[in-house]
Amino acid sequence: MDMNNINLATFEPGSVWLVGSGPGDPGLLTLLAVQGLQQADVIVYDALVNDSILKLARPDCALEYAGKRGGRPSARQKDISLRLVELAQQGKRVLRLKGGDPFVFGRGGEEGLSLVEHSVAFRVVPGITAGIGGLAYAGIPVTHREVNQSVTFVTGHDSSGALPGAINWSALAQGSQVLVLYMAIKHLAGITEKLMAHGRAADEPVAVITNASLPDQTVLETTLGQAAEAVRRRGMQPPALVVVGGVVPLRAALDWHGALRDKVLTADPLGTRRLTDSA
Amino acid sequence: MDMNNINLATFEPGSVWLVGSGPGDPGLLTLLAVQGLQQADVIVYDALVNDSILKLARPDCALEYAGKRGGRPSARQKDISLRLVELAQQGKRVLRLKGGDPFVFGRGGEEGLSLVEHSVAFRVVPGITAGIGGLAYAGIPVTHREVNQSVTFVTGHDSSGALPGAINWSALAQGSQVLVLYMAIKHLAGITEKLMAHGRAADEPVAVITNASLPDQTVLETTLGQAAEAVRRRGMQPPALVVVGGVVPLRAALDWHGALRDKVLTADPLGTRRLTDSA
Repeated sequence: MDMNNINLATFEPGSVWLVGSGPGDPGLLTLLAVQGLQQADVIVYDALVNDSILKLARPDCALEYAGKRGGRPSARQKDISLRLVELAQQGKRVLRLKGGDPFVFGRGGEEGLSLVEHSVAFRVVPGITAGIGGLAYAGIPVTHREVNQSVTFVTGHDSSGALPGAINWSALAQGSQVLVLYMAIKHLAGITEKLMAHGRAADEPVAVITNASLPDQTVLETTLGQAAEAVRRRGMQPPALVVVGGVVPLRAALDWHGALRDKVLTADPLGTRRLTDSA
Repeated sequence: MDMNNINLATFEPGSVWLVGSGPGDPGLLTLLAVQGLQQADVIVYDALVNDSILKLARPDCALEYAGKRGGRPSARQKDISLRLVELAQQGKRVLRLKGGDPFVFGRGGEEGLSLVEHSVAFRVVPGITAGIGGLAYAGIPVTHREVNQSVTFVTGHDSSGALPGAINWSALAQGSQVLVLYMAIKHLAGITEKLMAHGRAADEPVAVITNASLPDQTVLETTLGQAAEAVRRRGMQPPALVVVGGVVPLRAALDWHGALRDKVLTADPLGTRRLTDSA
């Protein structure tokens, strides 16, 4: 890859880059993210970061895990922020690697404020958020001219793990023709009930996407009224994206990723994991 | 840049890639976008694409302009879609290059449907949307735990150029604590009046961002009640992003891009173009 025409920022020792790694496909990494991965002295990474992305680090780069996965306890947010400060103050190039985008339900702002408070220089490297790029790999455009003039991104649980209490569900249900729910599996029954109670139709199209943009991406097409039960029956696990609205049926035509994958998998007896809610 | 660890998709002759180029900084291009730029036989590009990005194309790549800029007439959407089909049917690798993300108010879905209709294979390469990545370069996180559990992206005009008629302004105003308006300069007075009429406070913080993520990025900090007049007085021109809500004041601490730029510009008598609405 010839990058001679592009001057990328230099990763200064003693600074922190807050980097989004995108939904999973390493091809969706930005040039700045790759630059950071190849120059970092230490990478502090989250559970949602794909292993193939960590392989871009230098062989002598230290990797520190700061997420919750496989039963390991979750590092507290404050501890992570202070760890970033500590590593930077040791003069290291510190890359904080997150899934998606650091500022989309990713707590990048909190970590940035902690760095500012301790006078540590930092840079934000935005990433492709799964609510846009992951949906694109499912063949679902987050906006479409005939369908919606606005789209709302919502988190399915607050920092305590509960359904967010500050949300005005009536306005949320009526405000955008398309809703994209992050981290929504845990409270999906409650969320879909609230949306229907405030006027969204039970037969409105819904897609539930796991492992967005990765080879084992799974897309469940269902409806608002059936989504929670369909997810339960399939045993789909977090993290997942849930999209509600008239853009979902466009997938029937626009599923380019499935079409390309099917072509590749013609010689693969394992087949694909495409689900439809045909119960 | 050592990319040996990553297998990127091959750009097949006779196919189309719908590629998002991000908000402007070439460092925010994805690896797939760069791969596409370096392999394409022809690039059909929009007005919002930065020139430094086009320089990544092969020397013998044909560049076709399909936007409206500098008084040149805008190509009709249907004509663009059919041109993509025509070029692909000639066996070319056709890269359709858009600013931001192809599916965020970018008409990527319409072009995709046209390709499907004509049996042309395509791939979508998501880009960093300006409403997330551009805001990040202004030091504004699109979500922040203490501020918002949802964010709504809205387009400021519909395909005819009018204020979108299908929007429920009451629900929009009440639905998300943070609103990000694309293409909102033209109807800014009407939009801000509607938001205030439906309960948003006149003193709510607003930022208006032009040339997001580029060296001449300009950020105007104002309020909902003063935004339209402030933009008019400054003569700010489209395209611009407008963000409304409690994440805007975080910029006072989180403006990493301005901080880095100020450092670079210490030796530059031209200074920066940072505006505050102090009238």
